[in-house]
Amino acid sequence: MIVLEEFLARIRHDVDKALDELIPGVDIAPVNLHQAIRWSLFAGGKRIRPAILIAVGKTFDANPDHLLRSAAAIEMIHTYSLIHDDLPAMDNDSLRRGKATCHIKFGEATAILAGDVLQTLAFKTVAEDVSLDAEVRVRLIALLGNASGTPAGMVSGQQLDLDAEGKPLDINALEQIHRQKTGALISASALAGAIIGGASEQDFAATERYASNLGLLFQITDDLLDVTQQTTTLGKTAGKDAAAAKATYPGHYGIDTTRELAANFHKMACEELSSIDKDTSLLDELVRFIIGRSS
Amino acid sequence: MIVLEEFLARIRHDVDKALDELIPGVDIAPVNLHQAIRWSLFAGGKRIRPAILIAVGKTFDANPDHLLRSAAAIEMIHTYSLIHDDLPAMDNDSLRRGKATCHIKFGEATAILAGDVLQTLAFKTVAEDVSLDAEVRVRLIALLGNASGTPAGMVSGQQLDLDAEGKPLDINALEQIHRQKTGALISASALAGAIIGGASEQDFAATERYASNLGLLFQITDDLLDVTQQTTTLGKTAGKDAAAAKATYPGHYGIDTTRELAANFHKMACEELSSIDKDTSLLDELVRFIIGRSS
Repeated sequence: MIVLEEFLARIRHDVDKALDELIPGVDIAPVNLHQAIRWSLFAGGKRIRPAILIAVGKTFDANPDHLLRSAAAIEMIHTYSLIHDDLPAMDNDSLRRGKATCHIKFGEATAILAGDVLQTLAFKTVAEDVSLDAEVRVRLIALLGNASGTPAGMVSGQQLDLDAEGKPLDINALEQIHRQKTGALISASALAGAIIGGASEQDFAATERYASNLGLLFQITDDLLDVTQQTTTLGKTAGKDAAAAKATYPGHYGIDTTRELAANFHKMACEELSSIDKDTSLLDELVRFIIGRSS
Repeated sequence: MIVLEEFLARIRHDVDKALDELIPGVDIAPVNLHQAIRWSLFAGGKRIRPAILIAVGKTFDANPDHLLRSAAAIEMIHTYSLIHDDLPAMDNDSLRRGKATCHIKFGEATAILAGDVLQTLAFKTVAEDVSLDAEVRVRLIALLGNASGTPAGMVSGQQLDLDAEGKPLDINALEQIHRQKTGALISASALAGAIIGGASEQDFAATERYASNLGLLFQITDDLLDVTQQTTTLGKTAGKDAAAAKATYPGHYGIDTTRELAANFHKMACEELSSIDKDTSLLDELVRFIIGRSS
């Protein structure tokens, strides 16, 4: 675990440095817009998605310098989604990672624009990444577009989630929401690493199955954290899911069965790694780290 | 003018067809999200930006089939910006093109998501456009990202515009807002056509100057329409700029001087065309059409 913790710390450092270079500074107009972007982007995020991208890329022997901008771009998309999810018309949250949310600090209009433009900057970043062939860049942009878009990506998952509030939901519908809302971008992070690393078709498919299980595992542990942790530990308002009658695994199965499900997704993710003829120990540790968040 | 009107009608038809194919149908979940996207996308927009892209592309002898998806992508970006601009936290408008705005019809959360995902679909559309070389696609995505982003694009222009409400503004600041908020995407439409048409460096530069004047002309005529037309003719709430103490040319110069300015931008745009060694009559007619909107 020490190795993984060092790896994650280095990723955080490198990705934060890349993001700082890619986002206009607060000395450039409109100052409040760039402050708002940076407020949310540098709020202490763990950079899990960049870590997944870089870990998969390293597994397939990619040049680390070729992974960094795509990793930063995925973090921009993730952060844009958090800023918009927190808006009054959406989840109406005032606390995120222990700090005021973007609209509380900078006003709603600026928060909407900060989220909008973070998405723009994400695609622009990949398009302008001269370390990658143009063919690779368009493949990555299409991947990110599908994973964060509709009908099978993050935004459609968020819409389904909002529509489901307060309604009884069967487990298939719940899993579909989770796959889209969180899983799709987690999967895309892994697949982006495989694309940049030039993984074979067979390895790409194994990575896809690994990432699919990892994505669901991630959302389940998130759900567990929401019910088991205090607001101070969590850095965001705890118990919000139940309060909003959100569809969650613990709400559906109870905590114990949800933990068993998480262990099962963990097992399935690791099994997929065995068919990849590379040193996959880092990917194995990553799954362990994610399930460890909730215990 | 008959030729241009026929050209514009055909563009509207072709672009609407392309958009219909590129946007998930209302039989696909989440239905309300896709209805909301289509509500705003097919609200009778004149498809001016696609027309500029296609007119410039045709001027440089591009295959018309190669222009359509990029033209549709730019319309998606434009429509996403309209949906978000109309939100209560932004311009708070309930009427657009004679119809209820997206958030009035579908609720604020869905309107935010519809705008978000239209932006995503725009970049995905260009990334997946196999009619274009990957090199051309990444150039177009970077162009659109810069034109619609920050610090010199549409979103930063919108932020500057919001920040300026009710404040005295000198003409340089006003022009900067207009260049970013409206001009940047109009320019990008022209430049995208030049990129796809493979314009020479010199012709690209002339197109850039033509488009820059065209973009300001477009915003000025928009400002003029806001003060001179009734809500019913305009299809959106007239007189809104003055009511919101928005920075406008007529507010700064009065109507007559603004008309003179428009005529001057018209003249400058047309002058740039003379250095392009192609039949630029369509581009000439386009400028005439845009200035004609306000007379």
